[in-house]
Parts: sequence; structure tokens; C-alpha cells
Amino acid sequence: MNIVDIIAHKRDGQTLSTEEIRYFITEFTAGRAEDYQAAAWAMAVFMQGMSRQETVDLTLAMADSGDKIDLSDVLPFAVDKHSSGGVGDKTSLVVLPVVSACGVPVAKMSGRGLGHTGGTLDKLESIEGYQVELPMERFKELARKNGIVLAGQTAELAPADKALYAIRDVTATVSSLPLIASSIMSKKIAAGADGIVLDVKTGSGAFMRKVDEARKLAKVMVDIGVDAGRKMVALVSDMNQPLGVAAGLALEVKEAIATLHGEGPKDFHDHCIEVAAYMLLLAPDSGVDDIDAARQKAQQSIDDGSAFAKFRLMVQGQGGNVEQVESPDLLPGASHQRKIGAPRSGYLSKVDALQVGMAVVELGGGRLRKSDPIDHGVGVETLLNVGDKVSAGDTLFVLYANDEEKLETALNRLRNGGFEINDDPVEPYPLFYDVIMGE
Amino acid sequence: MNIVDIIAHKRDGQTLSTEEIRYFITEFTAGRAEDYQAAAWAMAVFMQGMSRQETVDLTLAMADSGDKIDLSDVLPFAVDKHSSGGVGDKTSLVVLPVVSACGVPVAKMSGRGLGHTGGTLDKLESIEGYQVELPMERFKELARKNGIVLAGQTAELAPADKALYAIRDVTATVSSLPLIASSIMSKKIAAGADGIVLDVKTGSGAFMRKVDEARKLAKVMVDIGVDAGRKMVALVSDMNQPLGVAAGLALEVKEAIATLHGEGPKDFHDHCIEVAAYMLLLAPDSGVDDIDAARQKAQQSIDDGSAFAKFRLMVQGQGGNVEQVESPDLLPGASHQRKIGAPRSGYLSKVDALQVGMAVVELGGGRLRKSDPIDHGVGVETLLNVGDKVSAGDTLFVLYANDEEKLETALNRLRNGGFEINDDPVEPYPLFYDVIMGE
Repeated sequence: MNIVDIIAHKRDGQTLSTEEIRYFITEFTAGRAEDYQAAAWAMAVFMQGMSRQETVDLTLAMADSGDKIDLSDVLPFAVDKHSSGGVGDKTSLVVLPVVSACGVPVAKMSGRGLGHTGGTLDKLESIEGYQVELPMERFKELARKNGIVLAGQTAELAPADKALYAIRDVTATVSSLPLIASSIMSKKIAAGADGIVLDVKTGSGAFMRKVDEARKLAKVMVDIGVDAGRKMVALVSDMNQPLGVAAGLALEVKEAIATLHGEGPKDFHDHCIEVAAYMLLLAPDSGVDDIDAARQKAQQSIDDGSAFAKFRLMVQGQGGNVEQVESPDLLPGASHQRKIGAPRSGYLSKVDALQVGMAVVELGGGRLRKSDPIDHGVGVETLLNVGDKVSAGDTLFVLYANDEEKLETALNRLRNGGFEINDDPVEPYPLFYDVIMGE
Repeated sequence: MNIVDIIAHKRDGQTLSTEEIRYFITEFTAGRAEDYQAAAWAMAVFMQGMSRQETVDLTLAMADSGDKIDLSDVLPFAVDKHSSGGVGDKTSLVVLPVVSACGVPVAKMSGRGLGHTGGTLDKLESIEGYQVELPMERFKELARKNGIVLAGQTAELAPADKALYAIRDVTATVSSLPLIASSIMSKKIAAGADGIVLDVKTGSGAFMRKVDEARKLAKVMVDIGVDAGRKMVALVSDMNQPLGVAAGLALEVKEAIATLHGEGPKDFHDHCIEVAAYMLLLAPDSGVDDIDAARQKAQQSIDDGSAFAKFRLMVQGQGGNVEQVESPDLLPGASHQRKIGAPRSGYLSKVDALQVGMAVVELGGGRLRKSDPIDHGVGVETLLNVGDKVSAGDTLFVLYANDEEKLETALNRLRNGGFEINDDPVEPYPLFYDVIMGE
């Protein structure tokens, strides 16, 4: 077997064998296949596609390329969630405490933000002292003791995926369904998940602009998980407009805490209940076996305060300042605040998630490069949604800034491309477009 | 303009603009586009193809990526030839003296051999003292003074092509018509050719196995040359069996000298006359304007000894030992000689050029890696051609070796796969399959 032949086979539209895919990934991880060979191979995959079996083989080969986490000694069933990334998507901050409060312990590894989408770790670091980097022993200890832990990735999970992604990013080979799906799933499988709820976003603020593409990606990932012996659900959810009101690090933590108190925006609350309910449905020991019962159980954990208590416990366990959790006003804020009002009456026909996300970046609350510093206090609140009736002067956005120049830049962006108002009534976006169950 | 977009355009089947192609090649040559980006781009080109305009643009961008030779101060019209490479293809050694003797001065840069095909420079170095590396001033001086010079490439011609080829070689993107054609033509154009006769080989010993592929490649190269303002002819010639009798460095020089004396094998002689005639036809000052007159003029230069005199002058000009030209027996020889006889009577249905070429490599007369040493004295003579009637015991091959072990290896190869004998009569191969004239 040799690398050039494997590239040629894929180039010519042949189906690669399990052995060929594993050999390619092994050689690439070891540095014996070159970056330019991976680039040519990725382009061939982009253009020829991959069968279901090839996609599973690639996923498992990448999952096996580095460390693999085994949580079986601390969790009877490791249920995980994955969001494809969006604006205002602070879902993990609410869903994990809810699921844990419902008696299903959770131990999740999350990531940082890049571009217009925020990262869970960055949001958690708004809380003074919160440790996102935990040694594996401590990570497991917290899962065992508290039933909840939410930290960064310490082990070297799926290094082949990391290296391949770095090349795809600069060779126009990112947007290939089998490559995207295997990239996501390889990390989830290496992280030890037994069951996974995928939240695949679609719309202007999502990687997948069109519903059909998102649905296809969701289906491919569910298939991979099922073939790899995992329990799977994928939700296809809207990301044309921001999720909830808050976009920005501390702002989102505040909104998550409000939601855990039963006081969050309805769209975000409903979204969290749905994701949590499917996680409970996957976990064999959750005590629920239909989605309605799961939704009720999730709601109950908010109503009785147990979900908030789990969030507090999580922060405490990871060294965070619980006073800021009790009194979110103590979280980082911003020196400047400015509103954008509706220029005329009508119906909101666009509240552009991508533009809101980019405005947050411009305010300093996101990164364009991994090394960029980040301001936890800034952000944008989006007070109205597509379909809402507005009167001239109604507040559409509130911007929180620590720098006047940045504030002006973000204001200009949102004024010029952040929203549209229609004379005629507009249909609101659904929260979810589809649910794809494994098997 | 950016590299990733250009890769994406080609990936999606768009036609790249002249500016995009030039930008890509400029950035790649300067090291600002990475090898893996060139690899992904090459795979996209492989799979999507290129229009005639794109192929011309790529050729000219690569020709402009390094030094360009201007021969206009020494040659009224620079006529060049290019062979796609074959076994026993010592054509340049005869054709250049013939053309020069016909009053059309020639100044050619040649290459070394790799794999089963020999290189003109290696052959010339069989002659004691022959300098293949000449400073440009000396190269031009010889062209002006003697009307003939045949040396290696000193200037850095088309470095973009060199770098791109190195990547294509290990990413399964070699066999793409526009990439092959632009690679060859970029070097010819950078080398200052005004008119080019392409000798595109097809058959078991050629890069293009099938006649149709060779014809397509020839057509693409002729189109490039015409669009770039060059006068072009392409010949599609047979390389299923070796050209002439001799394959091996000094053996081929001896056969070239014999041919210049009018005593060469008929197939090789006829091949040389044809290539030389088309070169004369391209050159405006050759005094011939139809191919028959050109053939006669070429033949005349052999008959009257003027072509041989030009060969002698070329060797003398480049410091070679002319005694070896006068008495070719003084050229390097071999200590061992062995014949392979026909095992039975019948008609030769195969004399495999690739196997003969590989046997020469095994004897030490060729290279598998650029750094391999080379033995000028060894080689294989192929005494009969496909279609010839043979009796059991007739000599098919004569092997010349300086090492018994290598001799056995080469003998085994040729005995087992070098030829086939049929009971029924077999059609001989034609020398040429097609002639494609520019315009």
C-alpha cells in the first residue's frame, strides 16, 4: 500500500478500503505522508465524495490517531452534545446542569470561539477563577463527585483531524460533508461519548447556510455514530437570527443563569429544553422513555431550582467565584451602552445572526485569530426576532462596549446590515427544522 | 485575489482568469502559496481540466517564473525539438547536426535521463571531455561560430514548473493533459524557441501508452505554442519497441555516428530525417517550403558528409575527444557480451521498449534516482522488430555489461518479458501515427 496510489484511487472515484483509509491516516499522523499529499487527497475526497463505510472508517481512524478518553469508570453512560456553532449559542451552560439535575451525570469537553461564533470555554472564563484546564484525574473526580464537569480538552484527541483540518482550511476543502462529519464525530468518539445529541445549525449565522445541507450533514453524522455503536440524535435548528437575546461572553453567562432561574428568553429556553430532553432520552438510566416525559423532567429541574444548583456546583467545583453566579451583576460589564432603534414601523424580516456575531467580534468579544485577546464584558443584545411587529423607535439592539471606536464600527455594521423591516407581515423562523433519530 | 478562492474556483469547475493563474504561479514561485495549496489546486485541475486559454496562461506564467533565454542575437530563428522520451531515442544527436548542416543554426538545451528513458546529456558524456555545462556566453558564442551547440540547462528556466512537478509527482496529479503540456511548453518557451517540433511518443515505452492520448497531448501542446506565437509541429511516433538498434549511452552515440555516415538502422534513420525535415520546414531561412524538399535536403546533408562534420564540430566546440568521433570503437565499452536467441520460429509480435529500457537501467546504464551513478559502456541492442519473421536461434538481443550479476538480472527480464513470438504473421508498427501542424 502506498500514499500516492491511495490518492489516485480516490481521484478516480474508487471506494477506499478500511485498510487504505487507516494506512493514510496513520502515515499522515506519523508525518510519513506529507501535507501536500493530504491536501491532494482532501481535494479528491471533496470532489468524489465518500461512501457511508468510508466516512465511518475515516472517523474511526482519526479517533484512534491520538488519546482516547474512557469515562466508563465515572459515568454509567456518557451522553454528550455538540453544536455546530452559532451566535448566542450558550446552550451547554443550561443543558448540562439540567441533564445532571435529572440524574444523568455529565462530563463534557468544550472548545473556544473563533470568528463570529462564541466558545463555551471563553464564556465560562467570564466567571472569576473558573478553571477550564483540568488534569484528567480531576476531571473524572468532579464527574464522579458532582455529576457535572465542563472543561477544555487536555488530552490530545484526534490529532489527525486537527492536522487535516489545518490543511483543509487553506486548500478550499472545508465544505465537504464526509470531511466535516468525520472531523466532528472523530473528536466526539475519542472523547468517550456513548450517546450524542447533535445540534446542527442552519442559516446566515451557521456554517451550513441551507436547511437541506444541514439536514444532509446531520444525517451523515448520525449514520457515522450509529455504525460506530453510539446512540444518536441530530436536531436541525435555526441560526438565521441569534439564539436568545444575548451575544457576548459574560452577557451569555448572565442569560444562561437567568434561564436556569426560569427567566430566560422563550426561544433559548425552549431550545435548551429540547436538547436536554433528547439527551435524557438517549441515556438508559434517565427514567424517561418518551420525548414528552423527557421535556417535562427537564422543565421540572428548572422549576425546582435543581438545575441552577448544579450550575453553581459546577462553577464551585472548577474554582469559579460563586458570588458571581448568585449575583450575575458582578460578572464583567462594559463602560459604554448604545441602542439601535427601528427606523420605521413594520415587521422584522431579518435579524442577521452573522452580522450580530461579527459586531461582537468588532467590539472585542470574539477572535478572528486564535491568538487575539478577548473582552468578556462586551456584546450585543438582540431584543426582537424575525416576524415581530415593530414601531419606529423600538429598540432592536443594545450594544455593550469598552471602546468608543469599536462601538462605532459595530453600530455601523448593525445599522447597515443587521436587520430589515418589511411593510407586510413576515413568518417567524421555526426553532427546529428537523429531528433525525439514530437507526 | 487570494489563493484559497482560486483553488475553490477551479474545484467548482470555473474557468480561471489570466490574472488568477498568473497570481497563483507568482505566489507559488515566491513561496507565498504553500506546497499543499499547489497540491490541492493541481488535483482540482486534474479533475476539472483546463480550457485552451487557461492552459496557455499557465504555460506563459510558468515560462515567466524564472530566467528566459533570448537567442535572437545569435540565431535568426531558434528552432527546437522536444521528445517526450523513449528507449533508444538518440534523435537529437543526428537531427541537430543535420539541421545545422542544412544552414539553419541550432542551440539546444537538453536534459538527463531518469527511469527507463535515456537522456541526451548522459549520452554526450560518453565522449571524453564533452562539456555539457556551458556559461551562457560560451553557449551563444558556439551557436554563432559553429551554428551548433547542445548543452545542459544552466539558467533557471521555469522554476514554477520544476516546483509544481515535484509536488505532482507525489500527489497522483502527473497524468493531466493541461499540466503535462504546460510543463513541457513552459520550458521550451523559456528556452527561447521560436519554432518547435514535438516528438510525442506512444506505446509501452512511452509516458502516453495509447495513440489517442498522445495525439490529444500533441494537439494541446501545438495549441499552446500557436497561441504563444510560436511555429509548431507535433509528430506522434511509435515507442512500443525501441527506436533503432542501440539502447545505452555510448552504444547510442555509436549508432548516431553510424547514422550520420548513412549506415544507421532504417527506422532510426527515417525517424531522424522526418524530425529534421519538419524543423527545416519551420525555419523561414531554410530554403525549403514543402516537406518532400525538406526531407531531400536533410538526406543530402548525410550523403555529402556535412551533417557528420557538424557533429564533429559540435563535439570539438564543447571540448570532446574528436578521436572518439572518428573512431567510435574508442568510446566506452563493456567487458561482457551475451546474446538472447529466439526460442522458436515465427513472427515477432512484441519487442517491449519498456522492458529493454529497464534492462539498460539494471545493467547500470540508467538511473532510478537522480543521484544514481551511471555506466556509459553498457546497454542492449535490439536486432529485430515487431513483424519480423524469425527462425529459432536468431539473435533477438545483445546485452553489453560490466557486471555478471547485473547481466543475469537483465537477461532474465528480457527473456521473460522482452519479446513475444507468434505463429501467424504480425503487422509491423508504423514509425509515425500522426502529424499535427500548428494553425
